[in-house]
Amino acid sequence: MKESKKVNIPTKALAGFMELLPAEQILFDNMKDTIQQSYERFGFVPLDTPVIERAAVLLAKAGGETEKQIYRFQKGDNDLALRFDLTIPLARYVSEHFSDLTFPFRRYAIGKVYRGERNQRGRYKEFYQCDIDIIGNGKLALINDAEIPSIIYTTFKALDFGEFTIKINNRKALNGLFDFLGPADRASGILREIDKIEKIGEEKVRQELTKQGVEGDVLERILGFINIKGTNDEVIQQLRKLDIDHEGFRLGVEELAEVTKYIRYLGVPEKNFKVDLSIARGLDYYTGTVYETMLDEHPEVGSVCSGGRYDNLAEYYTNRQLPGVGISIGLTRLFFQLQDKKIINAGASAKTQVMVIPFMDDLQPPLELADRLRKENVNTEIYFEKAKVLKIFKYAEKLGIPYVAIVGEDEVKEGCYSLKNIATRDQVKVTFEELLATIRKG
Amino acid sequence: MKESKKVNIPTKALAGFMELLPAEQILFDNMKDTIQQSYERFGFVPLDTPVIERAAVLLAKAGGETEKQIYRFQKGDNDLALRFDLTIPLARYVSEHFSDLTFPFRRYAIGKVYRGERNQRGRYKEFYQCDIDIIGNGKLALINDAEIPSIIYTTFKALDFGEFTIKINNRKALNGLFDFLGPADRASGILREIDKIEKIGEEKVRQELTKQGVEGDVLERILGFINIKGTNDEVIQQLRKLDIDHEGFRLGVEELAEVTKYIRYLGVPEKNFKVDLSIARGLDYYTGTVYETMLDEHPEVGSVCSGGRYDNLAEYYTNRQLPGVGISIGLTRLFFQLQDKKIINAGASAKTQVMVIPFMDDLQPPLELADRLRKENVNTEIYFEKAKVLKIFKYAEKLGIPYVAIVGEDEVKEGCYSLKNIATRDQVKVTFEELLATIRKG
Repeated sequence: MKESKKVNIPTKALAGFMELLPAEQILFDNMKDTIQQSYERFGFVPLDTPVIERAAVLLAKAGGETEKQIYRFQKGDNDLALRFDLTIPLARYVSEHFSDLTFPFRRYAIGKVYRGERNQRGRYKEFYQCDIDIIGNGKLALINDAEIPSIIYTTFKALDFGEFTIKINNRKALNGLFDFLGPADRASGILREIDKIEKIGEEKVRQELTKQGVEGDVLERILGFINIKGTNDEVIQQLRKLDIDHEGFRLGVEELAEVTKYIRYLGVPEKNFKVDLSIARGLDYYTGTVYETMLDEHPEVGSVCSGGRYDNLAEYYTNRQLPGVGISIGLTRLFFQLQDKKIINAGASAKTQVMVIPFMDDLQPPLELADRLRKENVNTEIYFEKAKVLKIFKYAEKLGIPYVAIVGEDEVKEGCYSLKNIATRDQVKVTFEELLATIRKG
Repeated sequence: MKESKKVNIPTKALAGFMELLPAEQILFDNMKDTIQQSYERFGFVPLDTPVIERAAVLLAKAGGETEKQIYRFQKGDNDLALRFDLTIPLARYVSEHFSDLTFPFRRYAIGKVYRGERNQRGRYKEFYQCDIDIIGNGKLALINDAEIPSIIYTTFKALDFGEFTIKINNRKALNGLFDFLGPADRASGILREIDKIEKIGEEKVRQELTKQGVEGDVLERILGFINIKGTNDEVIQQLRKLDIDHEGFRLGVEELAEVTKYIRYLGVPEKNFKVDLSIARGLDYYTGTVYETMLDEHPEVGSVCSGGRYDNLAEYYTNRQLPGVGISIGLTRLFFQLQDKKIINAGASAKTQVMVIPFMDDLQPPLELADRLRKENVNTEIYFEKAKVLKIFKYAEKLGIPYVAIVGEDEVKEGCYSLKNIATRDQVKVTFEELLATIRKG
């Protein structure tokens, strides 16, 4: 026997890095494919930028937390870092390739990003983001903001996790309200508190705002505004009637009204979107429509798809004005949460449709069957090892392969194949055409 | 006007990192999808391991060049590095998840790997590898080695770059010959020279071998062996007749004979594979069948798909014996070379099938058309901006979108749509059904 070369290295993936078993990986990939297909359905083109960027590019804007989390390293003379989102690489890309691109530039990007967060259940240091953005050259029509919910609707309908609600607000309306009410200089802090209303409830938000010195009539008007309820049209009517004479506010409300109208034309059912004045989505970046998406049965998962309209994608890299609107799905975290709450279940999902088992010494007939099936676009595995037939059935079952086709001397003599349904254990003799038809149905 | 926030950061992607324009990206993604589809056709399951690994895992075996090229960095207390291939992560994964996996474990992996090579045209520091491996638990039948050329054949047939030849050799035969001929201790050096025969020619190889002290009868027998020519069966017959009484050599030749037989059963035409005794594929790793794939019209591109049989996947991480066989396509470099030699051409390839142009103030009819088309799985973009119609046609043309559907008041009145073929400039009025049929054909 050879001497062991084994060295004492942990073989577990690093903490915070998702690593899946095959059935889970297939499920994950199916979700990723569904998202990609839906993005392509709306005419977005793919973009795949490098994972490594100059640290200076990524840090141009990044502050506090991000800078601590970033994976940064030196290679030769280069100060490098791993991207922590897909938006900054997009901004750099559009700045660099501006003259080669056609605007509006509609791109999707599905890729891994990196954040060295503290170890915490369900938080990943390497995770997939699935982004779309529509970037205009100088300007971008408001109606693009209405297409985004239509994309979210199509995507989550196809993902099929149950009912969901796309929440829509407008930052112009929100900012306008604050501006009108006075505490414009504290707007950031107030928005941050409002963003938490789903998580911590109105009473806590009231307390926090009071702590920040927002009180009396101003406080009540903010909470009253956030608490406006009703159908989408009723909410918009109430907003129009509010005694707030402020240009930004009025503009924001009219944008909401128009976006709502177009969302309907684009086929999103009324129950799947909701004008909700409590969502704000972060601080400075968004400047118009903002979106969050909640699973109706699982609000504790939080928003599964968020984004919004921004005035300027790439101000750190170019002097051009590049307004845009976009959304992102954090797929790795979403997958973890859906599995954790048993909303999805890897089970035995396979891409392989049939396994051919050679049951004779002359391998020509079974190999030719596999070749013929593959030429008919049937995903086919051949079981090549020597093993008892029950062990082979078990192998197919564990992999989730629905059918096995047995090719032995009897079958060859009779000009047929024995096709076994792994779930029902039924076994029948079939011609090639029957075999093909059964597999395709199954 | 706002003050500019632009800072002076280069926006070009780092040297050695591929970044594509949209039409190129679509072409690249199509190639990647074709490879994936072909791997799935043969019953392989997907695996997507982290890009970041413990440096100790990656360096367990790596020597000289690799260690210099590796991207390695500290994060907190962790000594980390970016994977430089997909094989080491597979070895770690199989060692870690051994008891949850079903063997033979047939996995494909398509992902980015990192090597900080010197800047050189066509060499990339970040590049995609597209790998398949079949891993056995303790043993793995020889016939698996015959399935690999069938996968290569199916993949490159689908990729459609013209004719290609899969070259097959066997390391047991090669090693056996050297062993028989004497200079077994110099085998590595000799194999390295033989590997270069396609690049530098026989005369150079002869000189190099002579330098290494291989001469006389031994040198002639090595070159004679490498120069055996003929059909696959003729080559095998000549090998069998060689006056070499060595067990390893005989075993290797019989493996070649059996693999060749099964390759035929699996539907690979004779002209697409060739027993070629000059290929060796590196040094220690491979222990049986080895593969290279050459484009017939473009031998200068070198091997576009290589791999082989190995005795032990994961000896540094586990004491289990895990034999396997696999191949890899270096997609990023291949894409570069195919583009460079104009074998492929991005042109204006689009995934978007039609663009809807609203030509009226009421947007309901055009938006509803887009929704209806998308529900029929037609990839549909809507042109939302205000622009002259010729500019919009130009936009569609630049993106390679084959059709535009114009919806104006006339069309609504007549209950039809104006469908323009961007290539031919033909414009016709059609019903929804006609529109759908035309787009689907196109």
